[in-house]
Amino acid sequence: MKLNKSIAALPAGYLFAEVAKRVNTFIAANPDKPVLRLGIGDVTRPLVPAVTDAFANAARAMGTKEGFHGYGPDFGYQFLLSAIAKNDYQNKGVMIGEDEIFLSDGAKTDCGALQELFAADATIAVTDPVYPVYIDANAMAGRLGVYENGRWSKLTYLPCNKENSFVPPLPEKRVDVIYLCYPNNPTGTVLTKEQLKKFVDWALENEALIIYDAAYKAFITDDEIPFSIYQIPGADKCAIECCSYSKTAGFTGTRCGYTVIPKALCFDGLSLNKMWGRRMASKFNGVSYPVQKAAEAIYTPEGQVQIEECLAYYRVNAMIIRDGLIKAGIDAFGGVHSPYVWMKTPGDMKSWDFFDLLLNQAQVVGTPGEGFGPSGEGYFRLTAFNTLENTKEAVERVLKVL
Amino acid sequence: MKLNKSIAALPAGYLFAEVAKRVNTFIAANPDKPVLRLGIGDVTRPLVPAVTDAFANAARAMGTKEGFHGYGPDFGYQFLLSAIAKNDYQNKGVMIGEDEIFLSDGAKTDCGALQELFAADATIAVTDPVYPVYIDANAMAGRLGVYENGRWSKLTYLPCNKENSFVPPLPEKRVDVIYLCYPNNPTGTVLTKEQLKKFVDWALENEALIIYDAAYKAFITDDEIPFSIYQIPGADKCAIECCSYSKTAGFTGTRCGYTVIPKALCFDGLSLNKMWGRRMASKFNGVSYPVQKAAEAIYTPEGQVQIEECLAYYRVNAMIIRDGLIKAGIDAFGGVHSPYVWMKTPGDMKSWDFFDLLLNQAQVVGTPGEGFGPSGEGYFRLTAFNTLENTKEAVERVLKVL
Repeated sequence: MKLNKSIAALPAGYLFAEVAKRVNTFIAANPDKPVLRLGIGDVTRPLVPAVTDAFANAARAMGTKEGFHGYGPDFGYQFLLSAIAKNDYQNKGVMIGEDEIFLSDGAKTDCGALQELFAADATIAVTDPVYPVYIDANAMAGRLGVYENGRWSKLTYLPCNKENSFVPPLPEKRVDVIYLCYPNNPTGTVLTKEQLKKFVDWALENEALIIYDAAYKAFITDDEIPFSIYQIPGADKCAIECCSYSKTAGFTGTRCGYTVIPKALCFDGLSLNKMWGRRMASKFNGVSYPVQKAAEAIYTPEGQVQIEECLAYYRVNAMIIRDGLIKAGIDAFGGVHSPYVWMKTPGDMKSWDFFDLLLNQAQVVGTPGEGFGPSGEGYFRLTAFNTLENTKEAVERVLKVL
Repeated sequence: MKLNKSIAALPAGYLFAEVAKRVNTFIAANPDKPVLRLGIGDVTRPLVPAVTDAFANAARAMGTKEGFHGYGPDFGYQFLLSAIAKNDYQNKGVMIGEDEIFLSDGAKTDCGALQELFAADATIAVTDPVYPVYIDANAMAGRLGVYENGRWSKLTYLPCNKENSFVPPLPEKRVDVIYLCYPNNPTGTVLTKEQLKKFVDWALENEALIIYDAAYKAFITDDEIPFSIYQIPGADKCAIECCSYSKTAGFTGTRCGYTVIPKALCFDGLSLNKMWGRRMASKFNGVSYPVQKAAEAIYTPEGQVQIEECLAYYRVNAMIIRDGLIKAGIDAFGGVHSPYVWMKTPGDMKSWDFFDLLLNQAQVVGTPGEGFGPSGEGYFRLTAFNTLENTKEAVERVLKVL
């Protein structure tokens, strides 16, 4: 039986699985020491009332003859696609149509699956550090060569660090695809429209594709920071955008997101919108109807007010982490248009060592920068998704051991 | 930009998309003629009360501090995996453990994605006719060669027809993977344990893998028909089994299923359970928590009674279709341990011609056999998922035009 050796050969476990393993081991050995989790980017605030009502009512309706829904449209119900097109794009001056949106069970799934559109020998670039899913999905497809000394031999790394203010350089050599995530996971930093424009222009010149992960766009509070790559002229001819309700509306356990593929996006006369449509119709069967009704409720006036309140809550947490660290003289980045704060480890400590130190001495869980790529070594990620109380206490505990 | 030409080169649209297109065109032109749908395998009965209550209550709980759930475990909540292992396997004498089960948003997704475990040049066999997803997913991965005259050049077809009583022959040459679906979609026929054992023995001898799609197992009413491939000795060393709640409990629009990969399933020392675990942790983020609670409720005593009532309802429909056709002198198969009835077209009419005839003259929608593969030509599929009233009327209408 000929197996895909690229999956078997993948190094170590998935980052957050490794984090969970170490935390569980610690808890088992220290059941009396409460652990504060600022590691994985999982929200803690419940779904807002408008969303909960729509979700529960639709679930209830599934038990009635009139309200039952079987298979839905392949790419999502029109009521939701229309709400997305209007509220997330058209009303903000970005002309994305309903038929350019594909609903899914989440941005992680889409970010992992979109590489199916690429040839086996397509060349890939990612920012470094980076959300591991882009790399793992391409590595499993055998596109990245050999993994040695923390690097894939065929992958182009665009390093982002304190020295370049976390603005990635353009690739030195042409690649077929660049993955960008802004507001960035893990660094919490953003690109201005001018900085993003350089990537769009480069992709257009080089006939390359940008996969733009905008999962954290709801955290943006400044008009100068693009909420969508399609605010940049020409991006509809070179970019796919992935969006998520996980952080926007606390959907991490509800599961819904969407991907935008403009009809103008073609290479060699092939429409990526059509190709992805074919892929989705053949290999996916739509999102749970009650989940789609829940997502629709995000766009109601009440829903908007309620999710903004949640986002404001997390923004305060981010500020507490960021300001607490900076006041203590620690280099800390992000945390403004983002729920993530990216800090330098003290004395350039290795990031997994720092992880173990914080876990053992402060019972605070973060994510080691090295888990996000070689340029993440010496950095550490803290998230704003815990409660206000826990966030305050976590910062105090962290500062005590530094 | 180097694209995956295998997606772009896929022939025509996905079968059910083409069916929907023709039906919508007819309805637009004939708004006064009510169409009866016995085409796509979509259920019509609402979720049962036990499931609806669990679903709605869990959705409601997502709006509370205590009941909120963020990211769940990668492979499904323990409460559901445990219910599956006990009720679907262990209590029936099949020793499958919780850690051999992977929850997903549906069997279609899994059937499409499992080929990621195979090497790019793995060889594939399918029964013919066949559920198109197995073929399309492998074709998109570039494994099937060229599509000419309705056949893929590198795919092995195992023809199932009236002449061999729809029992597929073993492959003449070794292949790496065989896809089997029993009770079968589209023919509605089943294999006995002895017939299935031949495939398991063949796979063990040839070090091949069987992907066993058991999406319709809830329709089985005879102990001699295997509800799981793991009832056959040795299958844990050669088979993956995909299961679905879509037909079992009307989850077509709710989205939940699971795949079993035994720990004993290894090739060249590589564990497929581990490989799939890595794949799922990296490229999927779990099933909506309320959906998992809904699925758990299927296994309660009330849930079991209620879904059995639904299944009985559809079984009566299947019998009405099957008996109606047979009494009228038409060759009809399946429909006993299955919601599908597979009929010969009158006078060997082409199956798409028969589709158009039934749509235009009887306003009954079925699925043309040719859409399921070359051996499906001259056959036609009718489903038992409509209401009793509509099923009766559809059979009357069909018999009138024959």
